[in-house]
Amino acid sequence: MALVVQKYGGTSVGSIERIKAVAKKVISYKKKGYDVVVVLSAMSGQTNYLTSLAKQTNKNPKKRELDMLLSTGEQVTIALLAMAIDDLGYSAISLTGKQANILTDNSHSKARIIKIDNTTIKNHILQGKIVIIAGFQGCDKKGEITTLGRGGSDTSAVAIAASLQASECQIYTDVDGVYTADPRVVKNATKLSVITFEEMLELASLGSKVLQSRSVEFAGKYKVPLRVLSSFEEGQGTLITTEEQQTMEQPLITGIASSKDEAQLTVQGVPDQPGIASKILKPISDADIEVDMIVQSVGEKNTTDFTFTVRTDDYENAKNIISKTAKEIKAHKVYGQNNIVKVSIVGVGMRSHAGIASRAFSALAKEGINILVISTSEIKISVIIEQKYNELAQRTLHNTFELDKTKKQ
Amino acid sequence: MALVVQKYGGTSVGSIERIKAVAKKVISYKKKGYDVVVVLSAMSGQTNYLTSLAKQTNKNPKKRELDMLLSTGEQVTIALLAMAIDDLGYSAISLTGKQANILTDNSHSKARIIKIDNTTIKNHILQGKIVIIAGFQGCDKKGEITTLGRGGSDTSAVAIAASLQASECQIYTDVDGVYTADPRVVKNATKLSVITFEEMLELASLGSKVLQSRSVEFAGKYKVPLRVLSSFEEGQGTLITTEEQQTMEQPLITGIASSKDEAQLTVQGVPDQPGIASKILKPISDADIEVDMIVQSVGEKNTTDFTFTVRTDDYENAKNIISKTAKEIKAHKVYGQNNIVKVSIVGVGMRSHAGIASRAFSALAKEGINILVISTSEIKISVIIEQKYNELAQRTLHNTFELDKTKKQ
Repeated sequence: MALVVQKYGGTSVGSIERIKAVAKKVISYKKKGYDVVVVLSAMSGQTNYLTSLAKQTNKNPKKRELDMLLSTGEQVTIALLAMAIDDLGYSAISLTGKQANILTDNSHSKARIIKIDNTTIKNHILQGKIVIIAGFQGCDKKGEITTLGRGGSDTSAVAIAASLQASECQIYTDVDGVYTADPRVVKNATKLSVITFEEMLELASLGSKVLQSRSVEFAGKYKVPLRVLSSFEEGQGTLITTEEQQTMEQPLITGIASSKDEAQLTVQGVPDQPGIASKILKPISDADIEVDMIVQSVGEKNTTDFTFTVRTDDYENAKNIISKTAKEIKAHKVYGQNNIVKVSIVGVGMRSHAGIASRAFSALAKEGINILVISTSEIKISVIIEQKYNELAQRTLHNTFELDKTKKQ
Repeated sequence: MALVVQKYGGTSVGSIERIKAVAKKVISYKKKGYDVVVVLSAMSGQTNYLTSLAKQTNKNPKKRELDMLLSTGEQVTIALLAMAIDDLGYSAISLTGKQANILTDNSHSKARIIKIDNTTIKNHILQGKIVIIAGFQGCDKKGEITTLGRGGSDTSAVAIAASLQASECQIYTDVDGVYTADPRVVKNATKLSVITFEEMLELASLGSKVLQSRSVEFAGKYKVPLRVLSSFEEGQGTLITTEEQQTMEQPLITGIASSKDEAQLTVQGVPDQPGIASKILKPISDADIEVDMIVQSVGEKNTTDFTFTVRTDDYENAKNIISKTAKEIKAHKVYGQNNIVKVSIVGVGMRSHAGIASRAFSALAKEGINILVISTSEIKISVIIEQKYNELAQRTLHNTFELDKTKKQ
């Protein structure tokens, strides 16, 4: 019998009424003949509430204890959903990460799943039960409770779907799918019916916060068809799948994404010698600062200019570190700014079509938008621009590539 | 090194401020050179809150899922206390019931502890850590989470103390010890410095809600010295210990207890034949109704009157059952009342002294209090009286036996 894994996020289980609605949706799939495994987040707000209790107790709590605390959030929702399903006459059983045998490493608060021994889950399915598993959590080999980090429930769901070779992993959220752009900014943005894992990855990491990147990566790796859909409205949502399964009429561009969580740092006049990039970046990564875009360009007189972007939270820290480094390597100058935004065009169709970049740049230029940094990959073109042009740039690019004409389904 | 087990109840960990106060108290013992193992309840109100969520979801939730839900309450407090202790520079680790290897049977919501494998606890103690264990919960041999029922944290604490051969098991509550009577009713009630397990058991089961009976039983069985004391005030509290350790000057009476949770049922004119008591009580116990006092007395013409008491919640149900039984056994009549109260005198000193009962009965008679049912044991005399005489009866008996002169410590 076909098996689906359904993951419901915090707002979908944010109250008893909503938990009851989830129970009905789960049962509707059971009635259609599917075996259903459900993965849940904590009630919306609960993780923040527990985190605030922890911070009031200890400004820098041990991550092991934080995991002990936070993992209770999902344990509450799985028990309540099991009760709600039971109340409607169907048999359900809730399992903690440990009970579902989700083995992780011991990196508390950002653990990685090593293995899922699905014997217990399968036994319950064979008994006709709807199995409800706590997302976001696992257990290391010593029996310590671990969590996978924020948004980790998506990863739990995909990992469980992969382990059970589910026919689909459905991620229920408060949006009804993935759009060609942020509908709040671009009014004529359209919902995509299908998107590839690679595109979704680029969109996710670029700030379209529908799915956690790690879960998309995981789904791509194990070829688990992933579907994003709304827990509140009916609809087919967006299917995230491998390229081969897509329609013939592949659009050039799939979507436009934008991320404000970007700050730019440039070291000017770096003596051009081997190993200089690592000299600049090593102290940054040693400080656990994530670097996003990296661009090196030719400067004056055997020097280069070295630009990279970091998260806005890390901006001040990164600037201090890089200023020290600049002195050591005898660079001329450091400057940075954090009132910037990264806007990106994503699409696997780009691969086989030249001229996308130039069309994009000229469209932006026509609107008087100055591009500060450019970075490209096979299926993505990103530009850093001033933050005030954010919405204008997104709309301009959306129109240029006629994304409002993307086939709706 | 001497080891103490300390148990803190819900009000003691009811807020972050209180959890911080508990952290300080725990550390003060650590500083004195003790190894400390702490057992915690959920924050006050949390168990009720979770229960109400469950009831909103399913009027009759599966007990297995209820345990899954309720066990999160203690998991929150143990993590927070570990953080608070850590914040004060001491090393602490929290353990769930499962992690502490508290093996129970599989009777969800009222599980019994079968065994504690204390290896993990001992290892952490050897590393100098303060070990914080979730009370009220355990785990059956299949890895299912179980709870021990309301007040089960006391039982957890005693069981852990017994397993570790602790020098003392300290139960911190919102009262500062065990009194000769309820101080809200009897103004000159005095605090007892020492009391025997047997007396404490009688007092606990009679409605002095300081300690759960099961935990006292457990402590008595394993000879774990138990101390009841306040988490908010300094003081030695009350030590509950074996009789032999008591002072020479044993008072006759230790205390007066009262319980309103009593309803009386009487079957009149029961044909007096062997096995009749079991015929009457079996349907009651089959319906899972707990019977407290049982009194059989001679009635008219080869018949007996059969009286027993049940909890007020079970009164209606028990009355229906007993009315059916009465017809079957051809008894004359059934009557009952639930506006009654049980008042008891407890004291191991009673054993060797005659005349206690008659002194008590005549004192009550002098105040015009009519006794409905009498039941006695070696160390206890209980009377059922009308509820309106409750306070008067307690004060009368307290004065009669001069309990205000019990030695204060």
